[in-house]
Amino acid sequence: MCVLGLGLIGGSLLRAATAAGYRAFGYNRGTESVRAATAAGFDADDDLTAVLTRAAAEDALIVLAVPMPALPALLARIAETAPGCALTDVTSVKGAVLDAVTAAGLRDRFVGGHPMTGTAHSGWEAGDARLFAGAPWVVAVDEHVDAGVWMSVMRLALDCGSVVVPARSDEHDTAAAAISHLPHLLAEALADTAGEVPLAFALAAGSFRDGTRVAATAPDLVRAMCEANAGNLRDMLDRSIKLLTGARDALAEHGSVAELVEAGHAARVRYENFPRPDLLTVTVGEPDWRAALASAGRGGAVIRSALPGPDNPR
Amino acid sequence: MCVLGLGLIGGSLLRAATAAGYRAFGYNRGTESVRAATAAGFDADDDLTAVLTRAAAEDALIVLAVPMPALPALLARIAETAPGCALTDVTSVKGAVLDAVTAAGLRDRFVGGHPMTGTAHSGWEAGDARLFAGAPWVVAVDEHVDAGVWMSVMRLALDCGSVVVPARSDEHDTAAAAISHLPHLLAEALADTAGEVPLAFALAAGSFRDGTRVAATAPDLVRAMCEANAGNLRDMLDRSIKLLTGARDALAEHGSVAELVEAGHAARVRYENFPRPDLLTVTVGEPDWRAALASAGRGGAVIRSALPGPDNPR
Repeated sequence: MCVLGLGLIGGSLLRAATAAGYRAFGYNRGTESVRAATAAGFDADDDLTAVLTRAAAEDALIVLAVPMPALPALLARIAETAPGCALTDVTSVKGAVLDAVTAAGLRDRFVGGHPMTGTAHSGWEAGDARLFAGAPWVVAVDEHVDAGVWMSVMRLALDCGSVVVPARSDEHDTAAAAISHLPHLLAEALADTAGEVPLAFALAAGSFRDGTRVAATAPDLVRAMCEANAGNLRDMLDRSIKLLTGARDALAEHGSVAELVEAGHAARVRYENFPRPDLLTVTVGEPDWRAALASAGRGGAVIRSALPGPDNPR
Repeated sequence: MCVLGLGLIGGSLLRAATAAGYRAFGYNRGTESVRAATAAGFDADDDLTAVLTRAAAEDALIVLAVPMPALPALLARIAETAPGCALTDVTSVKGAVLDAVTAAGLRDRFVGGHPMTGTAHSGWEAGDARLFAGAPWVVAVDEHVDAGVWMSVMRLALDCGSVVVPARSDEHDTAAAAISHLPHLLAEALADTAGEVPLAFALAAGSFRDGTRVAATAPDLVRAMCEANAGNLRDMLDRSIKLLTGARDALAEHGSVAELVEAGHAARVRYENFPRPDLLTVTVGEPDWRAALASAGRGGAVIRSALPGPDNPR
């Protein structure tokens, strides 16, 4: 298994896969992270051609773990040196990555992925082999995906301790706008609003601390994921602004925030009670397996142990 | 010390004050909480006249711990039976309480208070003697407050493990709108927005869970605090809506959320580094002591051990 990019996610993945018994190796452009990884006993290199040549020779699963802007150049190098390798990624926006992969001619062996985890920190040093433990890891079930590659990506996610949520890339991106990108912008707005009020920080307690936690994330990372999902995020901003404006007007006109508060509470309760049944009934590669997985994932089902498939008979 | 109302905050206060060695007793209208409190070894009663008569006889500090709507009737009973007792409260909106206390003719012996704590749960059973530990507890320094009563309320907060933040009631309410009431409405809007999106709950992770945590609070409690602070909350909603609309437009026009993200991150960093020096230099009752405390509190200073004052020479 070959990780390209050893930041928080890629670095954690190199650690987790190594711990799970994979013969895992990584590439990073910056030599400092490579030195730190090597010193810690991991197999890392800053020579991209050497790493890709090795990946091709070992028929390794390649994991793209670089920021979006670095992706096209990296994909071009893969197309040159390791075009036959199975390919996945760990990026927070799936549509844009799929477009870039398609443009590079690498779609056939690509299955998108997204571990729904992270911290406010970044870089190799912030990584942790346990980062993925218990987290949902989306594995894409778009129409083109290959059953064999899908099995490999599913196994990697499970071996890192995640539960796998199958989802289409477009549905993932709409949902990610709602549960990841919008919360970041609401946190930024809350922090900025309170920052202008004397005494606010002096009184701030749990609801402010929790409500602004993700505003501590490095601005570049927040921008990268929000801006790569601009269309979906705009829709979610529109919905939230409409709800808040409605509450503002209701407060001004008849002193009540009942409508928003009751709807929000009901949604949070539904979330708390959202079922997470085991997904057990689909065989990867059977007719309509992609649609069956997408539908199960939408309903909350998660994969906790490897599904049957091409290399794993039921 | 006499607590009127044995819900989450009042019930926690009866436990904390008892644990701190106070001769503390409580009243609750509902007999079930009184039975539970008594069974747990606390001194509680559902006979308001008896409790207030005892408070007057013992010259006890009375703590108002009932919801806003129940306050005027309760204050009328206090004015009848225990008008000479020192009085404080634990309500999240200070201006409205001060108005009600003034209307009941009880302002001279009243010093407002607000422990900045709570959980998503409510009622006697949810109470905890450690609820106040480490939390900021605002004690009001409005122009009218009496130095002796102020000392008593400060001591109670410190004895319950809180740090005391001195603040004017009006400044408290503006700040509370920003750091408590606005976060609740943003959480409700986030939960409701995501609740409409298929797959959203299936993918929800840390940023959504934290961003909607306070949407789990009982709607009646959220409404009570938001609606009692309507004017300030409207201002904060206006600011946030303006920031979010700006981000929405910037995203549509040039694909960037830089302005909001950088401002929000900078505010969160200021919050994380907000100084909390010990407030040591003011003697309660000295000339201009109220303004001196308000100014120190605004700058982040907190009281961690009893200030000198009328009954506590430096």
